[in-house]
Amino acid sequence: MGVLRFLRLCALFLTFTVCNGWLFDSFGEQRRREADEVALWPLPQKVQSSGTAFRLSATSFQIVHGKGSTAGPSCSLLQNAFRRYYNYIFGDVRKHGKNLNNVFDSDVLELQVLITAADPECDGYPSIKSDESYSLEVDQPAAVLKAANVWGALRGLETFSQLVYEDDYGAHNVNKTSISDFPRFAHRGILLDTSRHYLPLRFILENLEAMAMNKFNVFHWHIVDDHSFPFQSRTFPDLSHKGAFHPFTHVYTPSDVKMVIEFARMRGIRVVAEFDTPGHTQSWGKGQTDLLTPCYSGSSPSGSFGPVNPILNTTYDFMTRFFKEVSTVFPDAYIHLGGDEVDFSCWKSNPDIQKFMDKQGFGQDYSKLESYYIQRLLDIVSSTNKGYMVWQEVFDNGVKLKADTVVEVWMNNNVEKELQNVTGSGFTTILSAPWYLDYISYGQDWQKYYKVEPLSFDGTAEQKKLVIGGEACLWGEYVDATNLTPRLWPRASAVGERLWSDENVKDVGSAYDRLTKHRCRMVRRGIAAEPLYIGFCPHEYGGQ
Amino acid sequence: MGVLRFLRLCALFLTFTVCNGWLFDSFGEQRRREADEVALWPLPQKVQSSGTAFRLSATSFQIVHGKGSTAGPSCSLLQNAFRRYYNYIFGDVRKHGKNLNNVFDSDVLELQVLITAADPECDGYPSIKSDESYSLEVDQPAAVLKAANVWGALRGLETFSQLVYEDDYGAHNVNKTSISDFPRFAHRGILLDTSRHYLPLRFILENLEAMAMNKFNVFHWHIVDDHSFPFQSRTFPDLSHKGAFHPFTHVYTPSDVKMVIEFARMRGIRVVAEFDTPGHTQSWGKGQTDLLTPCYSGSSPSGSFGPVNPILNTTYDFMTRFFKEVSTVFPDAYIHLGGDEVDFSCWKSNPDIQKFMDKQGFGQDYSKLESYYIQRLLDIVSSTNKGYMVWQEVFDNGVKLKADTVVEVWMNNNVEKELQNVTGSGFTTILSAPWYLDYISYGQDWQKYYKVEPLSFDGTAEQKKLVIGGEACLWGEYVDATNLTPRLWPRASAVGERLWSDENVKDVGSAYDRLTKHRCRMVRRGIAAEPLYIGFCPHEYGGQ
Repeated sequence: MGVLRFLRLCALFLTFTVCNGWLFDSFGEQRRREADEVALWPLPQKVQSSGTAFRLSATSFQIVHGKGSTAGPSCSLLQNAFRRYYNYIFGDVRKHGKNLNNVFDSDVLELQVLITAADPECDGYPSIKSDESYSLEVDQPAAVLKAANVWGALRGLETFSQLVYEDDYGAHNVNKTSISDFPRFAHRGILLDTSRHYLPLRFILENLEAMAMNKFNVFHWHIVDDHSFPFQSRTFPDLSHKGAFHPFTHVYTPSDVKMVIEFARMRGIRVVAEFDTPGHTQSWGKGQTDLLTPCYSGSSPSGSFGPVNPILNTTYDFMTRFFKEVSTVFPDAYIHLGGDEVDFSCWKSNPDIQKFMDKQGFGQDYSKLESYYIQRLLDIVSSTNKGYMVWQEVFDNGVKLKADTVVEVWMNNNVEKELQNVTGSGFTTILSAPWYLDYISYGQDWQKYYKVEPLSFDGTAEQKKLVIGGEACLWGEYVDATNLTPRLWPRASAVGERLWSDENVKDVGSAYDRLTKHRCRMVRRGIAAEPLYIGFCPHEYGGQ
Repeated sequence: MGVLRFLRLCALFLTFTVCNGWLFDSFGEQRRREADEVALWPLPQKVQSSGTAFRLSATSFQIVHGKGSTAGPSCSLLQNAFRRYYNYIFGDVRKHGKNLNNVFDSDVLELQVLITAADPECDGYPSIKSDESYSLEVDQPAAVLKAANVWGALRGLETFSQLVYEDDYGAHNVNKTSISDFPRFAHRGILLDTSRHYLPLRFILENLEAMAMNKFNVFHWHIVDDHSFPFQSRTFPDLSHKGAFHPFTHVYTPSDVKMVIEFARMRGIRVVAEFDTPGHTQSWGKGQTDLLTPCYSGSSPSGSFGPVNPILNTTYDFMTRFFKEVSTVFPDAYIHLGGDEVDFSCWKSNPDIQKFMDKQGFGQDYSKLESYYIQRLLDIVSSTNKGYMVWQEVFDNGVKLKADTVVEVWMNNNVEKELQNVTGSGFTTILSAPWYLDYISYGQDWQKYYKVEPLSFDGTAEQKKLVIGGEACLWGEYVDATNLTPRLWPRASAVGERLWSDENVKDVGSAYDRLTKHRCRMVRRGIAAEPLYIGFCPHEYGGQ
């Protein structure tokens, strides 16, 4: 029996999961077909797939606005997405002209994208409240993707592209399928660190692409830290001019930042910038005199500097002007203010700080000084009408927080207790502690990330609702443009499915099969996602 | 003081190590200059460097054959190397046209390459006996590189290119320097595994480039294994047709293999192919009936297969014809025959094998059967006039080996004892046990590889001489084209210096400084070598 005929039979009479097995190929041998079957990642909430297979022809198939859609050709976000997903589905048709040789009529002529809400949000930015749900009906002669607005449509387009599979003759097929889908968690983030190493723009954009393929929707941009300050501020140009690794080649100009934000928006991804203070600020001090605390050695300054100096009015003047700019540069409703790992030793050494502590009645409790600083900073940021995210220490230290503050739990020693406390106090929270992807190890560590259940802590239903998601963090000590992408993908994909799919989707074996194929799909789309284990992709990375 | 003037002063009056420190830049700030200083890797045996700096101009500088050299323009190996190193030194002049704008006379007009032996070996292949020593005198108006033959010249060209540094204005400088250099160990290898994942040709070539930058001279090509058989044999085409991941896209054709060998030869790198038997051969069985042992479940065959079947004459007929082809395809004097990790359970289950064991008087000692097979295989390979390398088990099992056999020590449990035994028996050996680079971990594990001293075992001077080198092994379970290069470099560079430089070159701090710069040099040459730690390269990978 020819391969094609067998495949068609397989498609006609069996569900696609059965087609995942061993097939006889044209060499008369059993050979694992790892490529051509459907592998949805992350798994949608509800999938009904019949065995009926339809053809898609690159020459006649189109993605179009559905009749009655509130979005039309002027919705450039969707227009761009249509083109992008057409290219993902058919490859670069100009390059692989072979596809055009398969002249036949499409069974499925169109994917009609129907936006139902009065405002399709074409020109808006995604937010924590965005509705990402969608439904997808794949049938003859048209498939229909329905969503309230563009954010759901983007997710549905990704899913549709994952449903299409190619047979050995280069023909594209899609099974009759019915999907209704929505994310389990609203905040599904990736943290990249551009301070410990500078990441050239194209690598940030490439990873936004990969995020969209895994339905992530937040780029947590840990943009500055102790080691360098690549963010170019218009108000304080010296910050990057003196604090970046290089003032011209290793900075993000306002135009770079705009490009990242727009590229992310087009993919339904929020950009939450982090400006972490009062610790992690060594690089700030290079371009802003008197911002950091002078450390003392005995009775005289040692020449080195500690955290932001919390006792000077100039500090708060600076922060007011700086965050005013930041709040206009980054359109997202939230700014991440950091607040983690403040080392008190420099504060302790400084006599002026000691005097201030006495005056305020803080005694020797430097966490009170930290809280004092953070409190004032939060008020400053609130006045820009932004919400804020903070690392867990800010909550742990008892700082008074606005009700809509998001507390990020990152310490891996007592995660469940911390989630209990944060949600018990009525704050929303996101989880990153189990997903520090910079900690590499030998073997399939993605399984460890996959098995995490964010809601396994003791708490009421109300408390569980306050866990709005999580983040995979790739800190930059050992990561730059040379190894970023293969180190992040597909390990972060495991987190992607955990945050999107139903909590019962947790079978590691099924995940392995789907993720193996999904990573080959990412590779085919140009993302250098590393292998899970022994095997191959039909189209290897950068292969001939 | 302007940067340029300061740099010139620095170059004129100080040694380059002093220039490694902090310099005032044009922003009036202290800023670490991590880029523009000389960092030799691996460190040559003898370096004398004066502070006198000379200019090199891209428009007038040339690499030429020295007067009286036995090699001339017909030596395409050198002609290619001259072009390659010119490009490394000046970058892509067409792309960075700026270099051409620096119009000034070169202080150093030429690098004269003088080959002294009657036979320069332009058309030969490197061997374990190749003389890689060279001397280098950098002076005005010409630098002179002297070597017995092309192999030493290649090493010296790499060193010369590492001596050249660029200042902030794009001008190239080289200090007056005198170097005499030779490798501590003759065998300095990298193992890549193309069976567990297929590596497209260009990634193999890219890593041969990186090997040359680190003065490695052996590509140990673990070309086939259980999981796939990508080597296309003319004699037995079914081996790859049925045993490769894909018969057309995932194979190395004879022409591919030739290209690898020639590309390596041009860089003074031997290609030692490994065809590992009798274990690690599952993929061989797909294209060669009756080659593998049928395993039994009780009294009937189970359908699965074990190691090569050592009791059939057809096995040895096959091996004779196969290795006859292999011996002509690979010009190196050695073939690696594997011989590791033979699982006896299948042999034990097979009644025919049991009968054979009885007949031969092997009792229940299956290592005797393994030795029987290996012994016959070694005789077959000997008859092709090739030498062989084997993994340590072959020696451990007491197989009778030819005097020139190279035993590879890979088991990390008792390395010193094994080295003692192997060399005590008079065999040459190479060490790979401490350098399994597929075992990744968080942090600067290159230091662990760097600190290994191959001759630290108890033994006579004669025994120590038998340790001819070592290999860094990157097994392919978790490695393919997406992550190969950043996972291998610069971690393998640590092994490169250990095997080339004097045993007293072991200061980790100095190594860190030089390797940080060397990895940026690799990045600038297009190799995605990952960072050692926090910091930056003036020219980031794939940056704008």
